[in-house]
Amino acid sequence: MPANNVLYAQSGGVTATINASACGVIEAARRNRSRIGRVYAARNGILGALGEDLVDTSLEPAAAIRALMHTPGGIFGSCRYDLPPLPLGKPHFERLAAVFRAHNIGYFFYNGGNGSAETAHQIAKILPQLGQPVISIAVPKTIDNDIVGSDFSPGFGSVAKYVATSLREAMADLASMAHSSTRVFVMEVMGRYTGWIAAACGMSLPAGEDGPLLLLVPEVHFDRRRFIAAVKARVERHGWCAVAVAEGIRLRDGRRLTQAGGDGIPGHEQLGGVAPLIAAMLRGALDVKVHWSVLDYVQRAARHLASKTDVEQAYAAGRSAVEYALQGRSDVMPVFRRNTGQSCSWRIVAAPLARIMNREKRLPRSFLTADGYRLSARARRYFGPLIRGEAWPPFSAGLPVHARLRLQPVRRRLQSAWQIPASTKN
Amino acid sequence: MPANNVLYAQSGGVTATINASACGVIEAARRNRSRIGRVYAARNGILGALGEDLVDTSLEPAAAIRALMHTPGGIFGSCRYDLPPLPLGKPHFERLAAVFRAHNIGYFFYNGGNGSAETAHQIAKILPQLGQPVISIAVPKTIDNDIVGSDFSPGFGSVAKYVATSLREAMADLASMAHSSTRVFVMEVMGRYTGWIAAACGMSLPAGEDGPLLLLVPEVHFDRRRFIAAVKARVERHGWCAVAVAEGIRLRDGRRLTQAGGDGIPGHEQLGGVAPLIAAMLRGALDVKVHWSVLDYVQRAARHLASKTDVEQAYAAGRSAVEYALQGRSDVMPVFRRNTGQSCSWRIVAAPLARIMNREKRLPRSFLTADGYRLSARARRYFGPLIRGEAWPPFSAGLPVHARLRLQPVRRRLQSAWQIPASTKN
Repeated sequence: MPANNVLYAQSGGVTATINASACGVIEAARRNRSRIGRVYAARNGILGALGEDLVDTSLEPAAAIRALMHTPGGIFGSCRYDLPPLPLGKPHFERLAAVFRAHNIGYFFYNGGNGSAETAHQIAKILPQLGQPVISIAVPKTIDNDIVGSDFSPGFGSVAKYVATSLREAMADLASMAHSSTRVFVMEVMGRYTGWIAAACGMSLPAGEDGPLLLLVPEVHFDRRRFIAAVKARVERHGWCAVAVAEGIRLRDGRRLTQAGGDGIPGHEQLGGVAPLIAAMLRGALDVKVHWSVLDYVQRAARHLASKTDVEQAYAAGRSAVEYALQGRSDVMPVFRRNTGQSCSWRIVAAPLARIMNREKRLPRSFLTADGYRLSARARRYFGPLIRGEAWPPFSAGLPVHARLRLQPVRRRLQSAWQIPASTKN
Repeated sequence: MPANNVLYAQSGGVTATINASACGVIEAARRNRSRIGRVYAARNGILGALGEDLVDTSLEPAAAIRALMHTPGGIFGSCRYDLPPLPLGKPHFERLAAVFRAHNIGYFFYNGGNGSAETAHQIAKILPQLGQPVISIAVPKTIDNDIVGSDFSPGFGSVAKYVATSLREAMADLASMAHSSTRVFVMEVMGRYTGWIAAACGMSLPAGEDGPLLLLVPEVHFDRRRFIAAVKARVERHGWCAVAVAEGIRLRDGRRLTQAGGDGIPGHEQLGGVAPLIAAMLRGALDVKVHWSVLDYVQRAARHLASKTDVEQAYAAGRSAVEYALQGRSDVMPVFRRNTGQSCSWRIVAAPLARIMNREKRLPRSFLTADGYRLSARARRYFGPLIRGEAWPPFSAGLPVHARLRLQPVRRRLQSAWQIPASTKN
């Protein structure tokens, strides 16, 4: 029996469109039945591969697979787990080789970000050395938009569209209340190390409008005094001010604001969000009513407001991974390059994983104005095409319909169960 | 000159569909030009009426007024201000009489909730006594759904649809992460005194599914020990648990959880949100990873995901107010009664303001299961029709388009400016 089955798995924080990539992989494999056998999916990422906890997607009807296009979250489950490097990780790779052998896995697709690219790279390099040849490809996905060498990351365009829309709507609310009530609204978005999502909030203002909105990103040190003065000036001029803040903003000394806790905010300890800290700071300094919001999972799961562009690109990433596999290319990730001269079209190229993994694309300083608080024209040209188009999911009885898969387990073939060696838990 | 001009104003916390009511008022008035003059709108609610700060909506093109149907926030500005009762409020009412007289205001429409109904009632009763006859009608609006005598409040259906959708999506995210990462997600919604919005979160689970979701409402005392046990049981059985919590939940002694602050959560003071408190509590008690979200303004401004039913009813509320006015009815509010036997149709009736104002419709205990944590079948029958239908706004370049009005000020006719007497500031 040829090793022509596929193993697909999802990794890291999920997105509104990671399942569109799963759909791309599965549909492309189904179109190539002469060369590709069954598509198995590991439950909960690489942990399911190690545990031989697989489901057989070939038992899912075509309509159920198609419904993944409008289903948020990771339908097969995800994990945050890095394989330890050799020699420590030898038992892991031997176990994976055994699982792949037992199920005739010839193709491995790992759908994740920078960390997951390393896992795919390790498998591409090490499993053949252990006598288990496999084509291993990383499928890009991350709301953080920090994959090096790709114009954007699938998953980002949708969260960008969602936060910009939500802030535009919330600013309409704030503007109506500001005369006699709330003057400041602080919206916290994800972004532990990079400010891509917070910067995308800048799209909530129409181009050319210098509205009362400040962006706070981890790439620009947070300066309390300067920030308060900036908010004060906007409240005085416009009557109100909105703030979009990335969860990971840092002080000059490198500490996150949430780590620094009550710094300058006597009597307040943080409970995990930076928005309530900023709100308390502004209340204290300006004596104004402040509202705040922490979007958390709601933002990255908001498939109901996905970017059509993002959904299509997420699908294309999965499809391209299968095409590369059939060309015999391993140890690569399909990445996106924007065509010059046309800001709204991209091509997909294969990037070697060693050049991507564990690196991080940060928000360029040129995406912000000199004061660091507003979006530059260059940033608008970058973000614009990524949020374009709507891809409403089907609704039934007022609520979005999500895919329901059978998730039929694959019969285990290995005698031994797998336990993560205690020394390598992470 | 007959006093046949209209004064329309918006009051209290705004909603995703209050502007649809404004559209209903203005379009109905335009259809009755023979009997109704100009529609003026007060800036920032009753404060603009007192300050003679009016705009002339008759200068807005029909398309701009129509665009209010998909524009969140309060386009004319809102306020939180209660007119003081007589005798203290005499200067206010005399001032309003002068403004109404100067601008030939024969009809006053105040778009708000229970408090605003009292303002409309005061104006209906007192201005005629001061020699300024006026028909004064309250147009219902509140996300809180607490207007007595109405099946629902315009504004509520949209926030209900948004929170139920957002939680359904976030639960898909949580379920994918739970195997090796986050086990609990806490979503805080508005509801200072009532649990209507938190209860609507229960619609995120399909009917008949007993999923791992707990609802916390102000109407049910928060019992820390019982709650932690309930979360623990669900995490053990399902692998994860979601919690929807109203901002105003209370302990048995009547204190809000956010007022009680660190009660039982050593080392933590609250910063205004109850979700981070609940999250810290669960982290401490169960040693699991917890994510939390505070939606705040984002939920009530989310016009992009409005309920079509709600948009239509908000419009009907405004239109009906004009119809009542033309029938000579004053001191009433158009309220909604559900037709028996058909859960999806309503009729509008005129309810006297004295029976509505400053009262509050609380979530019936029968809307929750015996344990107080889940939605009853009766509640599902109530909420179902309110969230039905989508009313996507137009999008351009990836973002929703909102109405842009000229908001042309009406020339002031009074000599004196208005200052709120210091004794009546609120």
